[in-house]
Amino acid sequence: MDAIVWSHEQLELIDQRVLPFQKTNFICRGVDDVYDAIKNMVVRGAPAIGVTAAYGLVLALMEDNSKASFDHACRHLFNARPTAVNLKDAIEYMKKSLGDDLDIHKAEALAIQYHKDDLTMNRQIGKHGAAFLPGKRRILTHCNTGSLATGGWGTALGIVRELHDQDRLLEVIANETRPFLQGARLTVWECLQDRLPVKMATDGMGAHLMSEGKVDAVIVGSDRIAANGDVANKIGTSMLAIAANYYKIPFIVAAPSTTVDSHTQSGMDIPIEQRPKEEVTHVRNQPIVSEEVDVYNPAFDITPAGLVTAIITEKGVFQAPYGF
Amino acid sequence: MDAIVWSHEQLELIDQRVLPFQKTNFICRGVDDVYDAIKNMVVRGAPAIGVTAAYGLVLALMEDNSKASFDHACRHLFNARPTAVNLKDAIEYMKKSLGDDLDIHKAEALAIQYHKDDLTMNRQIGKHGAAFLPGKRRILTHCNTGSLATGGWGTALGIVRELHDQDRLLEVIANETRPFLQGARLTVWECLQDRLPVKMATDGMGAHLMSEGKVDAVIVGSDRIAANGDVANKIGTSMLAIAANYYKIPFIVAAPSTTVDSHTQSGMDIPIEQRPKEEVTHVRNQPIVSEEVDVYNPAFDITPAGLVTAIITEKGVFQAPYGF
Repeated sequence: MDAIVWSHEQLELIDQRVLPFQKTNFICRGVDDVYDAIKNMVVRGAPAIGVTAAYGLVLALMEDNSKASFDHACRHLFNARPTAVNLKDAIEYMKKSLGDDLDIHKAEALAIQYHKDDLTMNRQIGKHGAAFLPGKRRILTHCNTGSLATGGWGTALGIVRELHDQDRLLEVIANETRPFLQGARLTVWECLQDRLPVKMATDGMGAHLMSEGKVDAVIVGSDRIAANGDVANKIGTSMLAIAANYYKIPFIVAAPSTTVDSHTQSGMDIPIEQRPKEEVTHVRNQPIVSEEVDVYNPAFDITPAGLVTAIITEKGVFQAPYGF
Repeated sequence: MDAIVWSHEQLELIDQRVLPFQKTNFICRGVDDVYDAIKNMVVRGAPAIGVTAAYGLVLALMEDNSKASFDHACRHLFNARPTAVNLKDAIEYMKKSLGDDLDIHKAEALAIQYHKDDLTMNRQIGKHGAAFLPGKRRILTHCNTGSLATGGWGTALGIVRELHDQDRLLEVIANETRPFLQGARLTVWECLQDRLPVKMATDGMGAHLMSEGKVDAVIVGSDRIAANGDVANKIGTSMLAIAANYYKIPFIVAAPSTTVDSHTQSGMDIPIEQRPKEEVTHVRNQPIVSEEVDVYNPAFDITPAGLVTAIITEKGVFQAPYGF
């Protein structure tokens, strides 16, 4: 399964909004399509957003390779989602690597390399993470951090896949991940496709499953890691971290090292994206509540560094005090 | 709004499975209808189940007032839901009060009294709870503990209503309460009807909202309280209790004193009902996940007594060490 396919003149994304019920591609022919795809969550998952943005800048250059147009495209894409640092990282990588030479073929080669590097990093994250967790394990995960969320393989789900390859995965519990249901729709789908032993839970079940000894580790991804080790990730993550801490279960964060933002001192400095009300009030376009109600819909939360057992990147295992 | 209406020959229940999208009544003409209503969650909420069961035994006597038939009806109803102690309490109250005199009119008067007593207890719970929480408050609650879940007014939501009556309710945050969405469908609906300042959240948002200072107390109901103070309540409750403890926010349990089961030593002795898979895999009859996936669906979890700031019953405020 390739969620992000570059075909030299356009970018094909699996439309993750309708998975697993429909498998349709969202075709990006220009940078505005890429902006829409990121903004409206056709593609989501911090590393996948980064890879998509890199290709988006190639499309931008194909439309207009003037410096002014390219800079505008960079600023535009940067504003599509505020929390994920990978988006910023991908844009800066393209800008710096290209410099003043806004050559389309060079940009294309850079974007393809960025994509490949992400896959390689995920494989390494998987190996480091599996080595950190000896023995057979039941893993609880939240949101989707697999092939769909990255350049391929996955971050947190990459560790789960590596455990499975090593015949040490007893079970992976996928939280459904309300409101957008990335766990139910995407993680479960990926696990079923690859025959991982998956069970789904609702987001409120974590502490209960831990209390019953059904969870040996919680592994999640991240959209941004502050210099002090605070972790921004999908809403619901910090509650799992607090529960894991209470039940003395390892709480592991898996992400490429580019997710660490040295310019961000602590979680307090990470902007939390507020998403539209309808994501909470509706499920699959049907209302689940009287529509006049107000809602909260923060897309992310901050897990304090003190609750994180280890942060796994392609460079290895990091534990407090963090010196990334 | 009366969720449970006795009309001397039949029992009319608001069908809570389809609220707030349809307001239809489920008519119980015999005890088997009452069994189905409890089992299939036409009526839910521990105190409401108790009240419904009391009327159910009146219907049983109207069908056949032999001792054998009555005893069979008692056993049958008892098996409809395993976790709530109020069901057992209501059945025992009817049995003991009637003794060998299985008179239909006496039974009817007893059931009506049981219903009235529940409403009176809820009003007292509201007063005790509001007195325990001085000042203006933002309250987070889980599941539905209001008029629909009780004989009227509510337990946890009764305290919220009392705070509102005293002009001290800044906001009530209703968790949607997956999988059955009692919070979204029922609590929000009750709050909107009575113009309480309500906002809805998904079940994974609690810790984040606490971290942002948006929650001054968590108040929940209970289906059974063990002698040591461990609390069985809707799945998702224990995670909120752990988060509230982490953020040093009061975690309050509100329930009639009959919810305390002195025969149950601790939470370990409380049976946790496992509910059908379809409640998790579907929302409003639409699948949200590939249907071949396995799921967890425990209906309740146990909050350890050590995480509970206070238990409020009609008799007052109880804190550890518990001597109910």
